[in-house]
Amino acid sequence: MSEPTSADFASLLESRYREAPSFDLPALNQTIECLLKHRSVRDFLPDALPEATLETLVAAAQSAPTSSNLQAWSVIAVTDPAVKARLAMLAGNQKHIEAAPLFLVFLADLSRVAAFGERREMNMEGLDFLESLLLGVIDAALAAQNALVAAESLGLGTVCIGGMRNKALEVTTTLGLPSRCFAIFGLCVGRPNPNRPAAVKPRLPQKAVLHRDRYDAGGQDEAIGGYETRLAAFRREQALDAISWTTQITNRLKDAKSLHGRDVLRESLRQMGFPLI
Amino acid sequence: MSEPTSADFASLLESRYREAPSFDLPALNQTIECLLKHRSVRDFLPDALPEATLETLVAAAQSAPTSSNLQAWSVIAVTDPAVKARLAMLAGNQKHIEAAPLFLVFLADLSRVAAFGERREMNMEGLDFLESLLLGVIDAALAAQNALVAAESLGLGTVCIGGMRNKALEVTTTLGLPSRCFAIFGLCVGRPNPNRPAAVKPRLPQKAVLHRDRYDAGGQDEAIGGYETRLAAFRREQALDAISWTTQITNRLKDAKSLHGRDVLRESLRQMGFPLI
Repeated sequence: MSEPTSADFASLLESRYREAPSFDLPALNQTIECLLKHRSVRDFLPDALPEATLETLVAAAQSAPTSSNLQAWSVIAVTDPAVKARLAMLAGNQKHIEAAPLFLVFLADLSRVAAFGERREMNMEGLDFLESLLLGVIDAALAAQNALVAAESLGLGTVCIGGMRNKALEVTTTLGLPSRCFAIFGLCVGRPNPNRPAAVKPRLPQKAVLHRDRYDAGGQDEAIGGYETRLAAFRREQALDAISWTTQITNRLKDAKSLHGRDVLRESLRQMGFPLI
Repeated sequence: MSEPTSADFASLLESRYREAPSFDLPALNQTIECLLKHRSVRDFLPDALPEATLETLVAAAQSAPTSSNLQAWSVIAVTDPAVKARLAMLAGNQKHIEAAPLFLVFLADLSRVAAFGERREMNMEGLDFLESLLLGVIDAALAAQNALVAAESLGLGTVCIGGMRNKALEVTTTLGLPSRCFAIFGLCVGRPNPNRPAAVKPRLPQKAVLHRDRYDAGGQDEAIGGYETRLAAFRREQALDAISWTTQITNRLKDAKSLHGRDVLRESLRQMGFPLI
């Protein structure tokens, strides 16, 4: 792999923001190149992954930070076609879950540490708080992102599947999860189909998400207005519907029904052993 | 930067697991090397960061996946010594927050999309569900991990500060956060003090966190037993107290008090605009 050039970076930033970058990167390296290149891949070749790919991704995932070294997460590597088919259906018929040779389901997993309390006949009351769910969710998300980056550095494609939360209880049963264990999202991993390459999706300008010393909502409207124009151009190029970002988002969050089953997640989590006090 | 060798990887895996690796990595690259090398740094030089470091980290963060392209996160770059001092105090007197030249606070931020609903006089009822908090927390965590990896690829050191959740309401006031916005954790960024290098912390063996097709708790006891031995060796080397992992964890989660203020997080989140229905 050759070292990326300054022009490579300008081009990556231009794909990400769809405007000429207003800054020079301080140093060029393959890792930042890999991060900036991310795009979601939903079209996979059926090829098996090279040997030890899974172990490499897990080693990367375990190298992510974890709160107080609790390591409050686990991952299920799904390769069984029947399990992938069931999960694809539960996620709202996402066929790429079946097509990917590897589907990783990341779990906020407090069951391992809960077992310590049981053995010592301690209550472990701390586990019952919303905080402990959040801690597990954050641990699992950091680990998952490292696995994703490692996969992409190996030339593999990935896409995150939040739809694992659509029918959380059914996913729990399908995967045989113990109490205090929650599938936060899945990650398809496979060789991207070179005949249908995925595009880098443009993001909001930095001024919309970056604040200095204190939150400042000024300038949001202008930033979002410009983004709508650039995203519309991207959608035309990709032959996607001409729907605005604002409309997509309001549709996605307008009511309980638009959450596709995730409106019952609080109650499902209680049944899964998270009282969330 | 030279390409890492097979021996480099074996050595990195041995630091991470404290046992000889049972697999060969399928391919060697600088990105996976960077991920495996992660260690938390709490001792920083006071040097300012190279120009455009912040913008580079934010570009990396924005390149992470985001659920339905909602981009439901923001980041506050804190460099003002007074703000850093206040946040260090709120996190339980973590002096490294003050010492780091840059402190990034990652926010689950639903306020941006909530504003769309207000402008259109729509209820955006979906925002009131626990799911929307989780979506923002996951978006923010994925973005943060990319920023962390980018920083480390540039030779900088980092440490995550979950203590931002100890006094969530006070952090919200200090940073002027709008409703539906929550600081999930902070990230110190700076040049590591070369005279006090941080060590790679050993993690559980892969068999403890990796499951195949279905969750399988068998083998946990053995895996954890071996880990206790290896972690004890690490703690001796680092001149840390001889406390077992199991005891650390049970202490950390035994009761409400051991959560250091995070036991009131659910109520604080309600006050911050997250009804969590």
